[in-house]
Amino acid sequence: MNVAKLARRHLKAPRSAVLQQVRARSTRAASTCSIPNYAEPSFPCVDAHAARESRILASTVKAATSSSGPSTSSSSSSGPEPPYARPSPSSYKTFSSKDPLPLVYAPPLPQFEIAYETWGTLSPAKDNVILLHTGLSASSHAASTELNRAEGWWEHFIGPGRALDTNQFFIICTNVLGGCYGTTGPSSLDATTGERYATRFPVISIFDMVQAQFRLLDHLGIDKLYASVGSSMGAMQSLAAGWLQPERVGKIVSISGTARSSPSAIAMRFAQRSVLMADPNWNKGFYYDGLPPHTGMKLARQIATITYRSGPEWDQRFGRKFREIPDAQQDSEHPRVPALCPDFLIETYLDYQGEQFCLKYDANSLIYISKAMDLFDMTGSSLKSLKLTPPAPRSSPPPLPPSLAAHLPSPHHDYYHSHLSHSKSHPPPSNPPPHLPDLAEGLKPLANTPTLVLGVQSDILFPVEQQREVADALRMTGNQMVSYYELGGVWGHDTFLLDVQNVGGAIRGFLS
Amino acid sequence: MNVAKLARRHLKAPRSAVLQQVRARSTRAASTCSIPNYAEPSFPCVDAHAARESRILASTVKAATSSSGPSTSSSSSSGPEPPYARPSPSSYKTFSSKDPLPLVYAPPLPQFEIAYETWGTLSPAKDNVILLHTGLSASSHAASTELNRAEGWWEHFIGPGRALDTNQFFIICTNVLGGCYGTTGPSSLDATTGERYATRFPVISIFDMVQAQFRLLDHLGIDKLYASVGSSMGAMQSLAAGWLQPERVGKIVSISGTARSSPSAIAMRFAQRSVLMADPNWNKGFYYDGLPPHTGMKLARQIATITYRSGPEWDQRFGRKFREIPDAQQDSEHPRVPALCPDFLIETYLDYQGEQFCLKYDANSLIYISKAMDLFDMTGSSLKSLKLTPPAPRSSPPPLPPSLAAHLPSPHHDYYHSHLSHSKSHPPPSNPPPHLPDLAEGLKPLANTPTLVLGVQSDILFPVEQQREVADALRMTGNQMVSYYELGGVWGHDTFLLDVQNVGGAIRGFLS
Repeated sequence: MNVAKLARRHLKAPRSAVLQQVRARSTRAASTCSIPNYAEPSFPCVDAHAARESRILASTVKAATSSSGPSTSSSSSSGPEPPYARPSPSSYKTFSSKDPLPLVYAPPLPQFEIAYETWGTLSPAKDNVILLHTGLSASSHAASTELNRAEGWWEHFIGPGRALDTNQFFIICTNVLGGCYGTTGPSSLDATTGERYATRFPVISIFDMVQAQFRLLDHLGIDKLYASVGSSMGAMQSLAAGWLQPERVGKIVSISGTARSSPSAIAMRFAQRSVLMADPNWNKGFYYDGLPPHTGMKLARQIATITYRSGPEWDQRFGRKFREIPDAQQDSEHPRVPALCPDFLIETYLDYQGEQFCLKYDANSLIYISKAMDLFDMTGSSLKSLKLTPPAPRSSPPPLPPSLAAHLPSPHHDYYHSHLSHSKSHPPPSNPPPHLPDLAEGLKPLANTPTLVLGVQSDILFPVEQQREVADALRMTGNQMVSYYELGGVWGHDTFLLDVQNVGGAIRGFLS
Repeated sequence: MNVAKLARRHLKAPRSAVLQQVRARSTRAASTCSIPNYAEPSFPCVDAHAARESRILASTVKAATSSSGPSTSSSSSSGPEPPYARPSPSSYKTFSSKDPLPLVYAPPLPQFEIAYETWGTLSPAKDNVILLHTGLSASSHAASTELNRAEGWWEHFIGPGRALDTNQFFIICTNVLGGCYGTTGPSSLDATTGERYATRFPVISIFDMVQAQFRLLDHLGIDKLYASVGSSMGAMQSLAAGWLQPERVGKIVSISGTARSSPSAIAMRFAQRSVLMADPNWNKGFYYDGLPPHTGMKLARQIATITYRSGPEWDQRFGRKFREIPDAQQDSEHPRVPALCPDFLIETYLDYQGEQFCLKYDANSLIYISKAMDLFDMTGSSLKSLKLTPPAPRSSPPPLPPSLAAHLPSPHHDYYHSHLSHSKSHPPPSNPPPHLPDLAEGLKPLANTPTLVLGVQSDILFPVEQQREVADALRMTGNQMVSYYELGGVWGHDTFLLDVQNVGGAIRGFLS
């Protein structure tokens, strides 16, 4: 039976017949109730899941019928295509490696692809490169390009005179390993089998993501990075890049990240993975020829969104306001009757965020990358258990900004010491976490790398305590070039996407 | 077809046949893969949902076969009984009211039952009564009784010489309206239809719960309460009781509660309801003749558990430790291979908490009661919109503890003023929320009621800011008998269940 026929049948009989029969009596009871005390319930938020499934199936039928006719589709590539999994390779560049990529937790990936985009101009000496790392679900499209005019996720941070100044720097952003926007991930074809990896994809680490990026740099002939820059999971990659190849990374920018994922952040990501993996459509990861786990993705994103913003923002933005309902449904004599589906504005906001996301990203990518974040731990004992051999800290002074290199007296270190207001003060933390010495041990390879650590006080996912921890541990390695900032405001973790003035300003100051 | 047969068939064909066919190709692909690069994935955490469903069905088949034979079961009461919905009326007392109960948001409930338990001895004057309110999912079984020897949820807080001293007081605890442990709720039979309410049950408010409790007190001939005591949602009820009938409530204890649910607490409860309502077994609330939404309940409880404890506790208790795996599966040469199912101890903890809870509580009760918490708002403007007319504050001085009443000079107010160390200081809050004056307006009926407000600094669900808000608003009403405490420690919201010494001590001091 081909997919289009299956889909059509599914539209008519979306649920298990058995369960429907089990339930028939209660439904009958509801409809034959002659004197109902209370209104019959309605649940538009539940109906939305079924309606979404119908829409996906209908578009699948349409696509299958118009493209290959109803009787073909025997290979996996002609099966129903989840709407999120339609990368447009013309909108970004791709690097294909036929050489295996060693992985921390598994045998090497036999081959892999990296999708990337660039902004600015590579200097003849190839010494003005900034590698920009993404958060969990972002693509390489950090800002608009000639290939793709759409706004990017960091549109206002990249450009002439901006935080990442394209007049000075050549910026590279990749889709991460494990992702679904052109880089090899669980939705990619495994060349050894001709099938999609799905959950046969190996568990990956943040270090693997960065190693893949270094392979892209090798391919581009870029020996050194002026800086490695990232926020959220990108901050983890940024630190990992400096750690793996200290001589190759001039500076590190770590915004709202961590060097060691905490149990409470793991808990929030675990909750997301749990609801996603419980969606029957997830099917243990083998959904690429069927229906994507869109309901699980929506629920997971709702939970994630809670961790991306802050209570104070919601107090200001939504308070306890309800969504508006038509006057006809209201009665000035009686209180507004609340609904069990989203009714408060905070609920409709979370519902909307989940709905917008649920078909835009691959569920398996979410699971693998969120797990990689959980596993990230740069304490010395953890790195040792991963058999990662710490390299020596960089020996040479870090590069100077291209614009200043011609004008400044040497030695370079003086420049940093005088320029970074925070670099000379190393007050011991007043209430250090017990793992701090272990973290400092792990971060030793970064002892000579200028690093900007920036956190946000309203961030509940990567709280400021973790930002202080990174800065403190770096300083304990002897690093005298640590800039540390804490921002106020109510935007929580998402501040790095929103606060162009303060986040962008700190980056620009640190890089220039 | 009877339920037992349906259940047997379901055991054999648990999923939609269509979806299985849609997926057949990917499964085939997985099994015919001749040279797998990586191990075939296994997901015990997903299999657990199916295994649980099989166990429920198997026990249903067994029960149906042994009790009424396979060919009977036409009425709803003989259908498959969810394991949590087996109240044992012999273990508690029940008050049945045939008089309608007015509700805030809906027409009156035509009749209702309240399950309750008591400890201590009612004084001849009936003036030593403490009404103890429960949190979201607790039963009336706060402590062991002669009818039920099992430990209660506040076992160590109730008894001779304890926080609620049974040598002095007669303590009453009820299962709340909307609950599933003997009090009328969504799983109860609607007498007008003979069917279970399910989601035809009306949306209820905290005020409705308390009105039902007052009806029980009427029935017991108890005109006045020595005190109204509660934690978490119980603190909301405790405040609501004092507000609804100021003359009837001598003192209020509000522990880790709020007088106005915040958007961030609503967000966390919304996430729980969303995952529950998305479980196909939930069936818009009409699952009582079918299978309970055990997977949704497990996922909801995992999320809830995150809000009940604190990051600092998990840092201390679990850190980044993994569950133990057998030596045979480990390889000292290579890093431990992480699993996508629960692997960190924090994950196995949340998984366990969800598993333990998922069949113990009625899903609809969870939805209705969690919604009632969201709706709770004692600001003047909100109470006005609910058409709740504020009564006058209590006029007479509050009752004195029975043990002291004979010995103290009058006026009674002096006793409170001298006894409560916090009562005389009313520093204006340094950073008051904008709704504080509105809240003070709403709390005016409590202006003369001695109130203990206690919060915990590590509580992320009812943060200390909300505790300060309650105390500040009460003081702004002119109330000079507000005791306020903040506790440290890492137990978060659950501190009220655990910290017998500090929570219990504050209560005992305030009541005696």
